[in-house]
Amino acid sequence: MALQSVQPRDHRSYDIVIVGAGPAGLMLSTCLARWGYSIKHVDNRPEPTRTGRADGIQPRSLELLRNMGLKSQIMSHNPARVYEVAFWNPSQSGQGIVRTNTWASCPDFIDARYPFTTLLHQGYIEKVFIDDLVKHKVEIQRPWTVASFRSEECRDTNYPICVLLKHIDGEETQEVRAKYLFGGEGARSFIRQRLNIGFKYIDPVEHIWAVMDGVVQTDFPDIKMKCTIHSHHGSIMVIPREDNMVRLYVQIASSSEIGWDRRDIATEQEIQSLAKKILFPYTITWERVEWYSIYPIGQGISDKYSLDERTFLGGDACHTHSPKAGQGMNTAFMDALNLAWKIHAVEGGLAHRDILKTYELERRCVALRLLAFDNRYANLFSRRQAAHDDIKATLGKSRDDSEGDVDEFTKVFKESCEFTSGYGVAYGCNAINWSPDHEAKSALMHPKGIKLRTGHVFTNCDVTRVIDANVVHLEQEVPLNGAFRIFIFAGDLYSSQLALQDFATGLAQENSFIMAQARPDVNDVSHHEQHNPHSMFFTLCTVFAANRGCIDITKDVPGLLARYRYHVYADDRWDARVPAAKASAHAKIGVNAGERAIVVVRPDGHVAVVVSLVQGPGTINALNEYFSALNSMRLSNIE
Amino acid sequence: MALQSVQPRDHRSYDIVIVGAGPAGLMLSTCLARWGYSIKHVDNRPEPTRTGRADGIQPRSLELLRNMGLKSQIMSHNPARVYEVAFWNPSQSGQGIVRTNTWASCPDFIDARYPFTTLLHQGYIEKVFIDDLVKHKVEIQRPWTVASFRSEECRDTNYPICVLLKHIDGEETQEVRAKYLFGGEGARSFIRQRLNIGFKYIDPVEHIWAVMDGVVQTDFPDIKMKCTIHSHHGSIMVIPREDNMVRLYVQIASSSEIGWDRRDIATEQEIQSLAKKILFPYTITWERVEWYSIYPIGQGISDKYSLDERTFLGGDACHTHSPKAGQGMNTAFMDALNLAWKIHAVEGGLAHRDILKTYELERRCVALRLLAFDNRYANLFSRRQAAHDDIKATLGKSRDDSEGDVDEFTKVFKESCEFTSGYGVAYGCNAINWSPDHEAKSALMHPKGIKLRTGHVFTNCDVTRVIDANVVHLEQEVPLNGAFRIFIFAGDLYSSQLALQDFATGLAQENSFIMAQARPDVNDVSHHEQHNPHSMFFTLCTVFAANRGCIDITKDVPGLLARYRYHVYADDRWDARVPAAKASAHAKIGVNAGERAIVVVRPDGHVAVVVSLVQGPGTINALNEYFSALNSMRLSNIE
Repeated sequence: MALQSVQPRDHRSYDIVIVGAGPAGLMLSTCLARWGYSIKHVDNRPEPTRTGRADGIQPRSLELLRNMGLKSQIMSHNPARVYEVAFWNPSQSGQGIVRTNTWASCPDFIDARYPFTTLLHQGYIEKVFIDDLVKHKVEIQRPWTVASFRSEECRDTNYPICVLLKHIDGEETQEVRAKYLFGGEGARSFIRQRLNIGFKYIDPVEHIWAVMDGVVQTDFPDIKMKCTIHSHHGSIMVIPREDNMVRLYVQIASSSEIGWDRRDIATEQEIQSLAKKILFPYTITWERVEWYSIYPIGQGISDKYSLDERTFLGGDACHTHSPKAGQGMNTAFMDALNLAWKIHAVEGGLAHRDILKTYELERRCVALRLLAFDNRYANLFSRRQAAHDDIKATLGKSRDDSEGDVDEFTKVFKESCEFTSGYGVAYGCNAINWSPDHEAKSALMHPKGIKLRTGHVFTNCDVTRVIDANVVHLEQEVPLNGAFRIFIFAGDLYSSQLALQDFATGLAQENSFIMAQARPDVNDVSHHEQHNPHSMFFTLCTVFAANRGCIDITKDVPGLLARYRYHVYADDRWDARVPAAKASAHAKIGVNAGERAIVVVRPDGHVAVVVSLVQGPGTINALNEYFSALNSMRLSNIE
Repeated sequence: MALQSVQPRDHRSYDIVIVGAGPAGLMLSTCLARWGYSIKHVDNRPEPTRTGRADGIQPRSLELLRNMGLKSQIMSHNPARVYEVAFWNPSQSGQGIVRTNTWASCPDFIDARYPFTTLLHQGYIEKVFIDDLVKHKVEIQRPWTVASFRSEECRDTNYPICVLLKHIDGEETQEVRAKYLFGGEGARSFIRQRLNIGFKYIDPVEHIWAVMDGVVQTDFPDIKMKCTIHSHHGSIMVIPREDNMVRLYVQIASSSEIGWDRRDIATEQEIQSLAKKILFPYTITWERVEWYSIYPIGQGISDKYSLDERTFLGGDACHTHSPKAGQGMNTAFMDALNLAWKIHAVEGGLAHRDILKTYELERRCVALRLLAFDNRYANLFSRRQAAHDDIKATLGKSRDDSEGDVDEFTKVFKESCEFTSGYGVAYGCNAINWSPDHEAKSALMHPKGIKLRTGHVFTNCDVTRVIDANVVHLEQEVPLNGAFRIFIFAGDLYSSQLALQDFATGLAQENSFIMAQARPDVNDVSHHEQHNPHSMFFTLCTVFAANRGCIDITKDVPGLLARYRYHVYADDRWDARVPAAKASAHAKIGVNAGERAIVVVRPDGHVAVVVSLVQGPGTINALNEYFSALNSMRLSNIE
């Protein structure tokens, strides 16, 4: 294994080698590049995605992209927006299809800033990340791939991973060293195979899908809506796209059928012909086909996401499923985000290396939920194709009392809205999510009445920023920069002064969670630094239940908290979800009049722990307990 | 004048020659380029604005930029947003300054989508337009200017203007012919002078202003707010900017004072020194000065905006005033927009050439109002500097009973909010604004109860687009494309059918306003054309007081109206301004249950006329009357 001696050597050592420039790899690369890490990023395709692939950005993902400052670039492509999904079924007369139901794709019970799915060609989305990477001097090396890799922890504890990269034509190679290796190379991950990590198929039935992007002319009235259409001739999913395009997913066959693998015979014309039959009595013709593909897909999950917390997998390398739920890209984004901030926390000295074990712990659960959802959804979708008679029987019932397939399909969809919107993704109680089940010592943890759910995304609230009177989205105020967001819901302006003062005093102590993580350049930080004047890992936001005009930062915000002058807020905006509340953000969080609480939000936007804000040292002690546990984490308390 | 024989000739004839690439010239150029006109655009500066100049985009202008699809590019520069203005005055103790009041810059009584002022360096704003022009193949020829021009209507009726352009160094020249010539060259307009158009100064007093853009360090708490500060040492206006910058306007002197012209002595240090005195007891130091300038400014207005409706002036060439109201760029935009669509209406055959007379008629009134506002505002601003004792006396009174300067200043500001937001700009009754005073024949004009004010901007409403269930801003649904927007508030879905059917039948007649302006390619228009399938001058939008799910475009939208399938809306969104309304858009417009109305909105977003929608031919006849009057306009009925 004397590779170094015979191969040209890239003499730089990298913080991370990222293989694959799809959604998972790009998100990880973009986060870590912005936070100052050195990255070797390779992709085996000669150029970014030109056609096809994923295209659905879920509401929570769009919020994340906004938090990264990338939303406006996405929206500049005029993507289609899906607010409602229409369900079409065979008409009772037996001829053609009729609309039987519609449902909001992100219903009102979900408190989303952007209650719609954004549909845009993956290539445009990738380009937004690639342009951002260029700004941070990361170039994706194409078409290159990984030839081999090995861990040499004993030889180089700083850069234990040795990776041999090769040009796709197999001639040129480079060997580099790295702290981490990430495999975001899709379902056939070489890294996963090389690590001998198993990949289990949940459902033994494979489905063959045809997907076609194109510009059509049709009198089908819902061609600009997301639709699931069941007919006597098969099923279609309609997805509107940018530039007058529409994507049709047509399920061609299942592996449970005889002679099922019809990939060879399904031509462009055959797919269109099938679509025409399904859409009858409506007509459809194609003005242009941008792309089409026929592919089998199974529902599978990787046994492990990492073996040693040095080499990680994410995205499709970990989980595959049908395209219909529009979750592939979104799940990949969230995998990468979850990993990114934990690597940052380890490398920055905030957390013990064992925090990296929570990556698999948290993300594999989400993938299992996704597969379970997809399984139910996809089986319902394909079952109709096989069981015409069952469907007819079900449709024979009146729509209200039907408890068969039709209602179950809609029910599954409705129940899953929260999950598929991204807001239902929740991480369980573990070393970083101190939900009420956690054996924390401080009695101030989990104050009564708090409506936030630990492990869930922090609640959206509008507030007024005191310094410039701007109306802002509180949850967006700290950019995605790898820092924890500490939201202090201080309640009433005057009665909170003593507790705030004590908390500020505690923060200023050398051993406080923030001072223990002080920036090396803390004494030379610019006057204009808004988010991280003391530590790269923390931003302190103070929210008063008061009108903006009453708040004087100099007088009302004590000590070190006042330095966060861009993060002092007045909770004085009306909110339709709590119409009677005087302080709607406090009300949404569950902090009632006379109460005060501090919400610790992880860098990825999920709630880590909530602590009462009280006079005396209790509050700072509770937060110090939480953060010192991160730092001295032991394997035993990970799960 | 045998210029052609000796000068190199640009053999192309242009629809318009535009001189000056500031806000007025760029807006005009961008509109006309998008609508298909050929443009020769010159500017005497070697490059776009690099520092200084205007920076305030008012709420209505931001809406306009959104309607042009340019808002996101503007916002990508992270401009400062001003939601509130703070008023500071000498403290009653006589030492330093105190905040005496704050006021929303666009208060709630104004129904604005974007209730804030956007502050961004003019260079960034210009670049957004210049980038758009490049897409439409218009390049600004720099540094070039106009050397002479003459009208030769008798010689060439198509391209009557002959313009001699020259390179700024005076050596190279080009002679071109054009249909129109626009002078947007600023206050010292050569074109205005050459036309011998007078420029009147409203107030004989000239003021000397210093303006400084820079990055500061200060403990002044409102440095991120717009502030007007009066002190015993003079007055300052604070304007926050992008990139941590702040702009300070300091009034140095007035021409009413002895030895007033201190342009020679006001150095960077002197301006800063004065600012420090004014801001006491707060401290301020400059980390960086990007730009500063000292200039005299008077309040003046051009006697005419055009002499022959071939050569026009706009922007600063027509009106100058102090920078404090932040109106310069906004007024220039609106001048250009007003002219652009009228040129388009004439050249496209929609309107008689006399419509161009309404450019001066409408825009000069606005400029006069602006000057009157600015005069009151600026005099109050500067008077404090001279009359310390008066101010002291005023301030000696309690704030509540004070009726002197302090309250008058605030009062002027408050009263003028609607005007300065852009929503107060209203055009009077004239040949194109058929307000109730207009001698229209049809009794269906101006139905009772309508809350829209003719000549004002159309009211903002949220509705649901039927075809894709998207929640949209109705007023933004037709892009700024030179077309009239015909909004049909059809009321109830079922009872409106007969009236809608009769209107649709009327529209389809050969002599209807829309068919009389049919596109030459009306039979070959793409299936995907959303806005102008029949005529480049009209888009028909149908709004039902019904839930989206109840509306079936095929059944409920008759005849030709159904072709506008992207413009059928459900008035089913709740609006805080009419909380009890079932159909909030109808309610805001003033169309009550059982009523129906058609609102004609000019291409620039101002309401032209409102007509009842009734059964029979009355409605189509009334609209035909309005549009045929545009086409047969006579001088006599312009004013």
